[in-house]
Amino acid sequence: MAKPTPLSGFPELLPAARAVEREVIASLSRTFELHGFANIETRVVEPLDRLAKGGEIDKEIYVLRRLQAGDGDSDSGLGLHFDLTVPFARYVLEHAGHLEFPFRRFQIQPAWRGERPQEGRYRQFTQADVDVVGRDELPFHHDVEVMRVMVDALDALPIPPVSFQFNNRKLIQGFYRGLGLPDVTTAIRTIDKLDKLPADRVAELLVSDAGATPEQAQRCLELATIRVADTSFVEQVRTLGVEDELLDEGLTELAAVVEGCAAGGHRHVTVEANLRIARGLDYYTGTVVEIFMEGYERLKSVGGGGRYDALASDGRTTYPGVGVSFGVSRSLIPLLADGVLSGSRPVPSCVLVAVADEESRSTSTAVADALRARGIPCEVAPNAQKFGKQIRTAERRGIPFVWFPDQGEVKDIRSGDQVAADPATWSPPEQDLRPQVISNEETTP
Amino acid sequence: MAKPTPLSGFPELLPAARAVEREVIASLSRTFELHGFANIETRVVEPLDRLAKGGEIDKEIYVLRRLQAGDGDSDSGLGLHFDLTVPFARYVLEHAGHLEFPFRRFQIQPAWRGERPQEGRYRQFTQADVDVVGRDELPFHHDVEVMRVMVDALDALPIPPVSFQFNNRKLIQGFYRGLGLPDVTTAIRTIDKLDKLPADRVAELLVSDAGATPEQAQRCLELATIRVADTSFVEQVRTLGVEDELLDEGLTELAAVVEGCAAGGHRHVTVEANLRIARGLDYYTGTVVEIFMEGYERLKSVGGGGRYDALASDGRTTYPGVGVSFGVSRSLIPLLADGVLSGSRPVPSCVLVAVADEESRSTSTAVADALRARGIPCEVAPNAQKFGKQIRTAERRGIPFVWFPDQGEVKDIRSGDQVAADPATWSPPEQDLRPQVISNEETTP
Repeated sequence: MAKPTPLSGFPELLPAARAVEREVIASLSRTFELHGFANIETRVVEPLDRLAKGGEIDKEIYVLRRLQAGDGDSDSGLGLHFDLTVPFARYVLEHAGHLEFPFRRFQIQPAWRGERPQEGRYRQFTQADVDVVGRDELPFHHDVEVMRVMVDALDALPIPPVSFQFNNRKLIQGFYRGLGLPDVTTAIRTIDKLDKLPADRVAELLVSDAGATPEQAQRCLELATIRVADTSFVEQVRTLGVEDELLDEGLTELAAVVEGCAAGGHRHVTVEANLRIARGLDYYTGTVVEIFMEGYERLKSVGGGGRYDALASDGRTTYPGVGVSFGVSRSLIPLLADGVLSGSRPVPSCVLVAVADEESRSTSTAVADALRARGIPCEVAPNAQKFGKQIRTAERRGIPFVWFPDQGEVKDIRSGDQVAADPATWSPPEQDLRPQVISNEETTP
Repeated sequence: MAKPTPLSGFPELLPAARAVEREVIASLSRTFELHGFANIETRVVEPLDRLAKGGEIDKEIYVLRRLQAGDGDSDSGLGLHFDLTVPFARYVLEHAGHLEFPFRRFQIQPAWRGERPQEGRYRQFTQADVDVVGRDELPFHHDVEVMRVMVDALDALPIPPVSFQFNNRKLIQGFYRGLGLPDVTTAIRTIDKLDKLPADRVAELLVSDAGATPEQAQRCLELATIRVADTSFVEQVRTLGVEDELLDEGLTELAAVVEGCAAGGHRHVTVEANLRIARGLDYYTGTVVEIFMEGYERLKSVGGGGRYDALASDGRTTYPGVGVSFGVSRSLIPLLADGVLSGSRPVPSCVLVAVADEESRSTSTAVADALRARGIPCEVAPNAQKFGKQIRTAERRGIPFVWFPDQGEVKDIRSGDQVAADPATWSPPEQDLRPQVISNEETTP
């Protein structure tokens, strides 16, 4: 069979890069678990009627059929999930009787969209989602909790600085209502165009499409330009002179989220109130967030989420939720491609145990077993070449140490230092034990 | 939307069971990495011409199309992989220029087959594969190495006792050739029916289908009944009086594999030479293995593999390999369903920090942050109910400790013991820190 060619939109990582991805996923999982979030995985397929809702996404859904399916094929009507929210909502409904609410879960899995591939956009991509979902009710403090978890999680990653930009739907809606705008929904959608159109043009559209007066349009723009890294936005909004109960609620909530997420001191995450963030999806009802990565603004957001008062409902019970998603593939694959991140070596092995001749392979294997029993990853040389060649084998694989059983010595092949050593007691320096993530920006702790 | 019903063949785990699956996968990964195997993941789709080879499996392949695909749909011709060997072979060919050979990898991912669901057989199922692949050549000692890795990996799992049953294709072929059987391939296929048909009937078929004399048929059966836990099979085969060079090679190899895998002393893995094992797949050329789990013989094998002299080839270069696969879903889902394995709790949290009243929630959050900073997973109570109710919240979630910030005390809710504690210094017993896998057979270390 001929040499295969890559499939556009289905990126694959070489072992050293995959080691970076695994470490990122392990780090995210550690933080989520420290905050008491349980991991789940859902099956990758959902019934089409749960996936296809008549929106833009529909044409990107991958549908399954069996290669030689008969008419009564029970698999027809299944598609691959395109995010982790739809399957999570279904999981909550299906398993509600076996879950404790509020249910706190994280989920790190691939999803699929048949869209045009480009940097940061892939047909198969891994997402990391963290959500809290309640039954019938979910106190607001969970908004602060879940956003704070993602702030902590991304702060622990070896990626460039990240900015969380928060807003609140109640704040926008209350402001527009208090301002007396006739069509609040259209106004929100129009303001959302500020990243594509100049402010003047957006003001015109607010007048022509949302029925605003020029004065109202001006106030909408003033609101949308407010962007601060603390709670001073409350005062700034107040000076715009709009009074509304929902606005008050939104201001209080947004202040609590910004305060809660900024607390504790983070290494490279910044937290802002940005009153222009609306997020396109209609189901958000309170807190909304978009996450941006420094130097990678061209990817648009690398994550986002918010509060939805009806994540799921089975007609009798409604499950409100709040969650946030981080695009693992969207952010990592460009970072790996640009060399901003790399893995220190493509193999887990810290030691290559040399083989003097094939007859003594079992001696080398015994040394390897002794090292493994003490948690030191190692491999035995594939053949009994001259030691110089075996050292070069280790070099090519990035393995830092070569062990010579016949001499009872171990060599650090970077420095050339060779010392007597006992496999029952020798240990490598901690940083050599496992492959490391190398960050080529000054963003690593 | 109505309450969803489960999809047959697509099992999903509740959080406590998922914690077991994660621990199993983490344990497998630890062993594979100690032996220097690098992890990779492949995309879930392959071109149909790589998947569909005209075999039995073809009709079980899931093909993708986009929901609203046009005529020029570039995704047509893609299917979900049905194992991890086909994608691995393709990965090796595609990325050969960036890999070091012999390339040692493990891969733990789901695969999909549209077959009739039953216990141990699912439409989506997770496999753990470990392989070594060479370029042009791959010394035999890698057979021993890769089988030994899986023995060590399964020995470390909290599952019932497992039996590795080895054979060698060269041994069978050499024996049949030395015996003078006219049709070796048909004879192998016929002997493979011994687990479905009585020995007499198989002997008849050897005569009628494979052209054996009754005496030859008898010898074939005698070979197939040899099953020992050491290398004494070599002597037993010799007494059957067949001479052949390939047979000699097979005997030497099988003895090396059995010896290498039995060495080191295992907890609950047994290793046998079982000269009846052939494995259906045609591409095996030397070592073959099937893995069985005690008490679950009805699942047939829970894993298997072997040596293939041409795992992949691009016409110019051939890549020989040896590998073995373990059915994570096939073995775990029945064990979880039967209660042989369970998770100690459905949440990672070791501590629930109580909340005296909503005004002091930030005090509770500060305690939680202090515990997390020291690696102790915890969550803050969802509301400020009476402490008795908060303790019951912890009970329902299986969280062993409740912290009372206002009293500066922590209670072990199992014993009722409550002691003064400082979040900067208190630690739970090691076994309470994370959810544990509970084994209800006496198979756990």
